[in-house]
Amino acid sequence: MASKSFNRRGFLKNSVALAGLGAGGREVAKGQAQGMPSKKVDELIAYGDRSRFVTSVRIPVAERHSPDEFGLTFHVLTPLQDSFGIITPSSLFYTATHRGAYVPDIDPREHRLMIHGMVDRPLIFTMEDLKRLPYVSRVHFIECLGNRARPTHKTVQETHGLTSCAEWTGVPLPLLLKEAGVQNSASWIVAEGAEEIKGDSSIPLAKALDDCVVCYAMNGEPLRPQQGFPLRLMVPGFEGIYQIKYLRRIKVVDRYYMTYDDYGHINPDPKVAALTHQIGPKSVITYPSGGQQLSGPGFYEISGLAWSGAGAIRGVEVSTDGGRSWKSADLRSPAHPMAHTRFGLNWKWDGKECELMSRCTDELGTVQPTRAEAAKYWNKPLDENFRVPGADNSVQPWKIASDGSVHNGLA
Amino acid sequence: MASKSFNRRGFLKNSVALAGLGAGGREVAKGQAQGMPSKKVDELIAYGDRSRFVTSVRIPVAERHSPDEFGLTFHVLTPLQDSFGIITPSSLFYTATHRGAYVPDIDPREHRLMIHGMVDRPLIFTMEDLKRLPYVSRVHFIECLGNRARPTHKTVQETHGLTSCAEWTGVPLPLLLKEAGVQNSASWIVAEGAEEIKGDSSIPLAKALDDCVVCYAMNGEPLRPQQGFPLRLMVPGFEGIYQIKYLRRIKVVDRYYMTYDDYGHINPDPKVAALTHQIGPKSVITYPSGGQQLSGPGFYEISGLAWSGAGAIRGVEVSTDGGRSWKSADLRSPAHPMAHTRFGLNWKWDGKECELMSRCTDELGTVQPTRAEAAKYWNKPLDENFRVPGADNSVQPWKIASDGSVHNGLA
Repeated sequence: MASKSFNRRGFLKNSVALAGLGAGGREVAKGQAQGMPSKKVDELIAYGDRSRFVTSVRIPVAERHSPDEFGLTFHVLTPLQDSFGIITPSSLFYTATHRGAYVPDIDPREHRLMIHGMVDRPLIFTMEDLKRLPYVSRVHFIECLGNRARPTHKTVQETHGLTSCAEWTGVPLPLLLKEAGVQNSASWIVAEGAEEIKGDSSIPLAKALDDCVVCYAMNGEPLRPQQGFPLRLMVPGFEGIYQIKYLRRIKVVDRYYMTYDDYGHINPDPKVAALTHQIGPKSVITYPSGGQQLSGPGFYEISGLAWSGAGAIRGVEVSTDGGRSWKSADLRSPAHPMAHTRFGLNWKWDGKECELMSRCTDELGTVQPTRAEAAKYWNKPLDENFRVPGADNSVQPWKIASDGSVHNGLA
Repeated sequence: MASKSFNRRGFLKNSVALAGLGAGGREVAKGQAQGMPSKKVDELIAYGDRSRFVTSVRIPVAERHSPDEFGLTFHVLTPLQDSFGIITPSSLFYTATHRGAYVPDIDPREHRLMIHGMVDRPLIFTMEDLKRLPYVSRVHFIECLGNRARPTHKTVQETHGLTSCAEWTGVPLPLLLKEAGVQNSASWIVAEGAEEIKGDSSIPLAKALDDCVVCYAMNGEPLRPQQGFPLRLMVPGFEGIYQIKYLRRIKVVDRYYMTYDDYGHINPDPKVAALTHQIGPKSVITYPSGGQQLSGPGFYEISGLAWSGAGAIRGVEVSTDGGRSWKSADLRSPAHPMAHTRFGLNWKWDGKECELMSRCTDELGTVQPTRAEAAKYWNKPLDENFRVPGADNSVQPWKIASDGSVHNGLA
C-alpha cells in the first residue's frame, strides 16, 4: 500500500489513503488490455452489461434454502457491503417470496387490475389504461420483516440484506380509489397479487388514500419479474409483505381480513395497524462491515444506510467507541421520505480495536434504539437469547480487530 | 379497447382509459402461466433479469454505423420513449465513443489516477484509495453534443436518445485538488482517459473546483464498462465529451490545451468556455412521441423529460396547440440540479389533429427557445436547412394525426 511518510494538511493528514509521486511508486495506468467480450456487437448495442471484474451477487438466506424442498421459499439478500448511493440496481434488489424462484411469467397485455368492493364504480384496468394516467416517480425502500431475523450473522448482506431501495413509478392509488368512489363506511382494502400461495394483505384505507402507488416501473424500466412485473402495490414505509407483487385486485372493505400473509405478526386493530406495520427507524454501517478488511491505520470514510417507515431521515450519528460517544454523520444523498439515505463520516483509524455503530433519527424525532434499549422496551433480559421482535431495528455494532478484520459485535 | 359509454366524474370523464365492470368485459387476471426460464436457480439468485416481455433496447445512430468500418465509432441511443421517472437503467444508458464496441477491459486493481502538473503534491490513487475517501451521491444527466444532430428523425429515441441520467457516486474533485495543492497561477485542468484515440478534455479550473466528481459507481453498482469502468470524471451540466471515461490522469495547467476531443466546437477562451460547454435548457415529450400510437380520443398523461446544464429545472410548460397557448406541467420527480426532471400534464385528446410541445425554464430563468427563436438568435433563415448549432435545445414538436399516429413536427 501507500507510504506513511507523507504528512499532508487537512483531514487526510497522516493518512495512508494517498500516496505521492515522490513516494515512488505507482505507474499511471497506460493503454489497458482490450478485452474482446464473447457477446456479439448487436448485444453490446442492445443492453449493456457489467464488467467481468464486478462480481457482486445476491445470496440466499442461510436458514432458508432458496428454493426449499417444495420449490417455493425464495429469500435472496442484497449485497449491501458493495452498495453505493441509495439506488439498488434492479438485478441486485432483494426478493422474498413463498412462490419460488420461478415467478409468475405474466404477459402484460393479458394482465388486469380490478378495483371493487365498497365502491360506487367497480373498475378494471389494463396495463395500457394505467400507463395513460397521471403518475409519480418516488424513491422508496422496501424491507422484509424477516430482515435481521438472526442478528449474529457475519456480514451486512446476511444481517440486513433483505432491504433495497429503488425509484418507483406508477399511478397514485388515491387517484384510482377516488375514480372508483370509495363508500363512506369503508375502512380497509385487501390487495391481492397473482401468486397463488401468498399475496394478499389488508391495508388500512387511510394509508391507501395517503401515499400508496400502483407501480409499473422501477429504476427507469418496467418492474422486474422478481419484483412483481407487471404491477406492484407500493405501500411506502410498511413492511415488504404489503408491497403486493403481480397486483391484480384491490377490494375495498369495512373490516380487517385475515389472509395467508398474516402469519401472526399483524395487529387486527385498524387504529394501531398503521404503526405496527411500519419499519424502522433503522440504520447500518455498510463499510466497514462484517467480513471486510481494513488495510491498515489511516483515513477511512465510514459509510452506511439509514431509513424509516415514518418519513425522511433527519440525521445519523456514528460511534467509533462502542456507543460511548457519538458524532453527527453527513447525509451523502438526498433524504427522501421512506427511502434509504446514505450517510458518511470521515474517520481516522488508529489501528486499535474498536467498535463502530450508527443510529438514526427520523423526521418524527424517533431515534433508533440500542440493543439494550430494545431489551428494556420489550422487557426481556439483554442476553444472547434476546431477539428484537419484528424487523429488528436496534443498533448494529461492528468490531474492528487490531489486524483490521471486521466482525459482528453481536456474534 | 374500453367502452365509451361511461361518463365519470373528474378529469377522467369521458375517457376511454377506464372500463367499468358493468361494461362487461374484462376478466381479472387469474393464475398466470408460470414460465420456466432457461436460467439455473443459481443465476436467478445471483443477479436478476428483466421479463421476456420487456424488449426495449438501445439502437445505433442511423447516420453512424456502430461500430463503423474501422471498428471504432459507437453511438448508441437510449430508448427514451420507454423511459419512466428520471433514472436510466445502466444497461440502457446511452454511449458515444470513438473507441468502438469493445471498450477498455480494465482490471480495477491495476487502475491508477494521477493528479499532477501545477500542484504542490502530485498524487497517485488506486481504486481502493479512492473508495476510502469521502464521497457524494448525486443524480446527473449526461448528454452528447451530437444529440439531435438531425432534427427530422422519426422517434424520440432517434432525435434525443443521446442523453441519459443516473445516480453517480464518487469523490468530489475539489477534495482531491485541495489535497494536491493547486498552485495560484493554474487556470485549467486536462483530464485524460485510458482510451487511446479519444479521451482528453480541457476543463476550466473554476468548474473543477466547483462540482466535479471522480465517480466509481452509477445506479448503485460500479460504473459499467461502456460508461467508463472503473473511473469517470463527472462534469455536471457540461456536454458528454467532458465526462472522461476510464479516467487515469488529471493535469493542472495554466492554459487551454487543444486535444483530440476538441473538434472545432470548443471555445478556447476560458472566460466563455464554461458557458459554451453547458447543455440546455432542454426538454422533450417522451409520450406521446414520434412513432407511437394513441388508441383513440380520451384522457392521456403527456410525459417528458427536462434538463439544464445550468442547474435545476424550475418549470415546464406544455402546448397542445402548436405553441399558441401553454400550460404549466407538473414536475413528477424531484428536480435535482443538472439532472433529468420528469414532467407530466393531464390532457384529454379530442381526436383532432394537433401538435404537442414542451419548453422548460431552469433555475437561472433561462427558457428553452422555440425553433424560430433559435433561428433568430443564430441569424439564419428558419427553413428546412436550419440546424441549431451545438446540442440543439430548441422545442421539439410532435404532431398527432386524427388516426392517433404521432409524427415529428419537423420532418
